[in-house]
Amino acid sequence: MKTLRDIGEDALIDRLIGLVPKDPKPAAGPGDDCAVIDRDPTSPALMLLKTDAIVEHVHFLPSAAPRAVGWKAAARVVSDFAAMGGRPEQFLITLALAPETPLAWVEDLYRGIGDCLETFGAVLAGGETTRVPTGSATVISISATGTVLRDHVVLRSTARCGDAIFVTGKLGGSLQGKHLDFTPRVEHTQWLVSDFKPTAMMDISDGLAKDLPRLAMASGCGFIVDPNTLPLNPYCTPQQGISDGEDFEILFTIEPARASTLLAEWASRFPDLALTRIGEITDAGKGMNLTGGWDHFRSTPVGG
Amino acid sequence: MKTLRDIGEDALIDRLIGLVPKDPKPAAGPGDDCAVIDRDPTSPALMLLKTDAIVEHVHFLPSAAPRAVGWKAAARVVSDFAAMGGRPEQFLITLALAPETPLAWVEDLYRGIGDCLETFGAVLAGGETTRVPTGSATVISISATGTVLRDHVVLRSTARCGDAIFVTGKLGGSLQGKHLDFTPRVEHTQWLVSDFKPTAMMDISDGLAKDLPRLAMASGCGFIVDPNTLPLNPYCTPQQGISDGEDFEILFTIEPARASTLLAEWASRFPDLALTRIGEITDAGKGMNLTGGWDHFRSTPVGG
Repeated sequence: MKTLRDIGEDALIDRLIGLVPKDPKPAAGPGDDCAVIDRDPTSPALMLLKTDAIVEHVHFLPSAAPRAVGWKAAARVVSDFAAMGGRPEQFLITLALAPETPLAWVEDLYRGIGDCLETFGAVLAGGETTRVPTGSATVISISATGTVLRDHVVLRSTARCGDAIFVTGKLGGSLQGKHLDFTPRVEHTQWLVSDFKPTAMMDISDGLAKDLPRLAMASGCGFIVDPNTLPLNPYCTPQQGISDGEDFEILFTIEPARASTLLAEWASRFPDLALTRIGEITDAGKGMNLTGGWDHFRSTPVGG
Repeated sequence: MKTLRDIGEDALIDRLIGLVPKDPKPAAGPGDDCAVIDRDPTSPALMLLKTDAIVEHVHFLPSAAPRAVGWKAAARVVSDFAAMGGRPEQFLITLALAPETPLAWVEDLYRGIGDCLETFGAVLAGGETTRVPTGSATVISISATGTVLRDHVVLRSTARCGDAIFVTGKLGGSLQGKHLDFTPRVEHTQWLVSDFKPTAMMDISDGLAKDLPRLAMASGCGFIVDPNTLPLNPYCTPQQGISDGEDFEILFTIEPARASTLLAEWASRFPDLALTRIGEITDAGKGMNLTGGWDHFRSTPVGG
């Protein structure tokens, strides 16, 4: 009998979304960082929708500080809005918890979620708590609406052959604690979409080795990356840099003619965050492969 | 050390929502069936937001047909939109599953979700799958947007002293299978809000004994119910009728002068669904109490 481990995450999602009704004319549907909903064609803004979940033993250890876990749970979603050029607005928080969970743990978790909402100007719209059986992992599921200007939205599926590939910050080493304490790149992508609109963009959640091929494939392209250019966190090998996942840095592409101007303006505007040109988009079938990255149903979880 | 079992669900939610930023001017915030978002004051429509989760061993048994579990997971959310006078639109589906889960189980679950979306004219906007450790309960978390006309929205907090209390359908006995196979009352509430606008409305998910006091307290009122009038499913005692939960019938109040006209018009329009007047809204502190109902952190789950 075939199980989820046999098929893997991307193939699973492909099969599932074929089984339910979908928007007949989506601005961007299942498969991008967020869904893009055009509720009012006369409005300059589009609505973004995102859902994301983190699980005890998989995305955080029971010993982790609950306030940091709450920050992470909300910041992952904020990062997805940033990756489309948008901002978060209304949050829905679902907690599935064992009855033995200490009240203080849940309150600190909520404080961490609150820290993140406050930092990025978002609000709680609704919440839900439900029990899981004693011994089952805690699940924190967060959905949110966001907003992006129609002229600013950037999909992952619109890179073009020859585009330069950039990545913000440094990669790898998330398990040394960075995965609980990262800053979604909202400020940086707001500037990018307004001043240097990328041709394609996404955030790196499952590692460059998983996410860059997703961007290239969604765009009908290939890619070449120079491993020597990869910006790595201290003590990370290039393989860890592309495989560890949970970087929550931004991966984007722009026309190559604008690359050097972008680098110069970025350095003066954001001196504390690296921006690195790591490669080039190619025609489909002409690029290279990367191996590694995080698969939810195959990789070893943090507590595994 | 205080745990969730010690405090119970309602008190927990009250404490948590104080820890995060909230909409400074919500149309209706945390505490109603859905959040009500006024995105565009010039539009006749309001946006509704809802999140809900069901958990293996708590809301369904591992032996339950996955297609029925999927229907239930989505239909619970649809019922909340119906309870505000609205309709569902865009769904976000999050599945937390063990890697050993059979692919066929997940596909049938999604088919059941698809059945419900198709029935009520809703669509999938996005999905997320994540693993839980082997042995942990499956969690299905569903968030959705909906829409309601500004003139039609009905809150649970606006009942008035003297209003007649009504309930659709029959109560109790959800564990005999009805909890997996119920029809959200969208058609009925659409007619109600247009032709007999209730003063307050909600759906019964945790049992009348939990939910009627919530409606009365949110409205700053009390209530009297005549136990002899309760519409019960076969083989249910009145206590089971008010306690079992997961009825997904609609509880609402209207001015008493309109009660008999409503009953007559309902009977000719919806001959297959009972509508029963069960009591009256009173001043705060003047009514009665009901005991029983479902508390997520205290009650015995279906597989417990």
